[in-house]
Amino acid sequence: MAQQNGTSEQSTEPDYFQTNPKPPNLDRQITSARSFIEQHASQDRRVALVTSGGTTVPLENQTVRFIDNFSAGTRGATSAEYFLEAGYAVIFLHRQFSLLPYSRHYSHSTNCFLDFMTHNDAGAVVVESEYQQQMAQVLSRYRKAKQENTLLLLPFTTVNEYLWLLRGLAMQMQPLGANGLFYLAAAVSDFFVPAERMVEHKIQSSEDFQEDLTNGSGARAPAAHMDGKRLVIDLDPVPKFLKMLVDGWAPRSMIVSFKLETDPSLLARKARYALEKYSHHLVIGNLLNTRKWEVLFVSADGGERWIRVPAGRRSHSVTQWHQDSAHLEEPTIEIESWIVPEVAKEHTKMIEKTLSK
Amino acid sequence: MAQQNGTSEQSTEPDYFQTNPKPPNLDRQITSARSFIEQHASQDRRVALVTSGGTTVPLENQTVRFIDNFSAGTRGATSAEYFLEAGYAVIFLHRQFSLLPYSRHYSHSTNCFLDFMTHNDAGAVVVESEYQQQMAQVLSRYRKAKQENTLLLLPFTTVNEYLWLLRGLAMQMQPLGANGLFYLAAAVSDFFVPAERMVEHKIQSSEDFQEDLTNGSGARAPAAHMDGKRLVIDLDPVPKFLKMLVDGWAPRSMIVSFKLETDPSLLARKARYALEKYSHHLVIGNLLNTRKWEVLFVSADGGERWIRVPAGRRSHSVTQWHQDSAHLEEPTIEIESWIVPEVAKEHTKMIEKTLSK
Repeated sequence: MAQQNGTSEQSTEPDYFQTNPKPPNLDRQITSARSFIEQHASQDRRVALVTSGGTTVPLENQTVRFIDNFSAGTRGATSAEYFLEAGYAVIFLHRQFSLLPYSRHYSHSTNCFLDFMTHNDAGAVVVESEYQQQMAQVLSRYRKAKQENTLLLLPFTTVNEYLWLLRGLAMQMQPLGANGLFYLAAAVSDFFVPAERMVEHKIQSSEDFQEDLTNGSGARAPAAHMDGKRLVIDLDPVPKFLKMLVDGWAPRSMIVSFKLETDPSLLARKARYALEKYSHHLVIGNLLNTRKWEVLFVSADGGERWIRVPAGRRSHSVTQWHQDSAHLEEPTIEIESWIVPEVAKEHTKMIEKTLSK
Repeated sequence: MAQQNGTSEQSTEPDYFQTNPKPPNLDRQITSARSFIEQHASQDRRVALVTSGGTTVPLENQTVRFIDNFSAGTRGATSAEYFLEAGYAVIFLHRQFSLLPYSRHYSHSTNCFLDFMTHNDAGAVVVESEYQQQMAQVLSRYRKAKQENTLLLLPFTTVNEYLWLLRGLAMQMQPLGANGLFYLAAAVSDFFVPAERMVEHKIQSSEDFQEDLTNGSGARAPAAHMDGKRLVIDLDPVPKFLKMLVDGWAPRSMIVSFKLETDPSLLARKARYALEKYSHHLVIGNLLNTRKWEVLFVSADGGERWIRVPAGRRSHSVTQWHQDSAHLEEPTIEIESWIVPEVAKEHTKMIEKTLSK
């Protein structure tokens, strides 16, 4: 099916997965996902695939430079915790070293984790008393998820790794039918460098060394070249994986995508446009500068509504790369604690519809 | 002086700092550095500026996409610890959320930090006994540096922030004379998008929305544009800040730069080329795939020598984004424990030369 939909694209799915190399550790990751999914399918538990963080687009095979999409992984890591609280098993497909469920409370914060620690009278390293309560809470939830095996962490770095993993995981989730949920919070690149256009070595800026800028396979012109002192990069469009997911890889699951924009005048139009183009279930729109306290739900039934955290309860750090909202002592509301139950409610409706058929 | 050297470049220094905006928090960072430097100057202590991590090149003012240089910050964070052990005060100019001295031992590892913690009989959160000894060591060194105020952490994200900070800090370090050391381990982009060529909003991939791709100032063509379904980016060369540093900003300090290559046949030539072009004191060359256990010292006196960790004592994680070498329980040698004393020795020679004049 995906092929039929892909034909309108510059890069169709079969092309993509035939011409871009399978990640070396893909099979191992898919195998671990299979047993995870089988366990929860046997318990009739819902399984959410939560994607999180940005994908990279390497400019060289031996990668020194790459293009990235801004995302610390806060939306995905926070949402994953609330899906676990809502009774879901969660496959957390995340950018390596982006924020993780539970440890996020002590990562990417302005405090160094060592500032939470002290020596007690016996000389042992313990957590400072003022941080004891919150860390005990976080640690308990983390250990519960580990004991019940309800959280599977799968890392990616490049957009190629992401696409291979998304396809492979979707195939594994098909037996879940309507109990499967895709919550696509990752910031996936719209552009990439195909393997055949990738140079092998670091692109040389000095004109004395530019003879070293050679193409990997020679099939097509390299994606990057020097023009005098200037670096020119031209990138291919990433195939429309959301279309493949909806029509080909996960036809019976609920699919929620995110749309991040910076221009408020575009957000609703672009969210609606995406929903109509890919005909999945829900698009959650958000703006770079307000994403921590307001999101726009755009659903297939034509509905559009904002979910907003009132001013007094907002996290104040919306600056890029400042992710302080995760500190438990703050009296702020994490908007994901409102988003996830809404999504779960929609998921329940969809499951009931399927059962009543 | 920098202007005279800059004239051969497409972007000269005065141009750069006149046409690219001063970071909003620069003055605050420089002020904190000034008092730090004054304290250690008054104690006649050597001060090392250690730069670490990759710089970003935003493609939009409201940044969704950016170009990055691969670096987890291992070289810089590890070296900073050994400079502190060698009696230096360290200004650690680092990419935000890259590895930091001391906390690096528990960051970017495959273990989640929460895996080191447990509840004791009293229900308090403590460090697992097997990790107690190593964490006590790390915590003691970390606290010593805090108590003696010998470590100043200054973060950057973009290459513009990096250049403004490097210039500002170098000016502040001038009173240190030969006691100042620049250890430039950061992976700084050779290319960038000047402010006048930066678009304001997220670049739209869908042809239905491309009218929104407008230039920030209109002075020159935007650095990024769509060509049908393809994204084309052309980048300006970053001005040769190392030349400015050597000749203009820090004429009396010792300057050590790093050269990372992926092609072994290029490394020595490129390191020598850089040393002759900028006429500073030392270039440390390293290859992406072997950087954890071998580096090439190329010095102004014409000397070239490799420093190599023997096979049995090497860290085995040289994969990008895997930084497990920092686990203290490993019997491996951190090559920075050999690099830093060698650099300090060279620094001593230079200081003695200066004094004997």
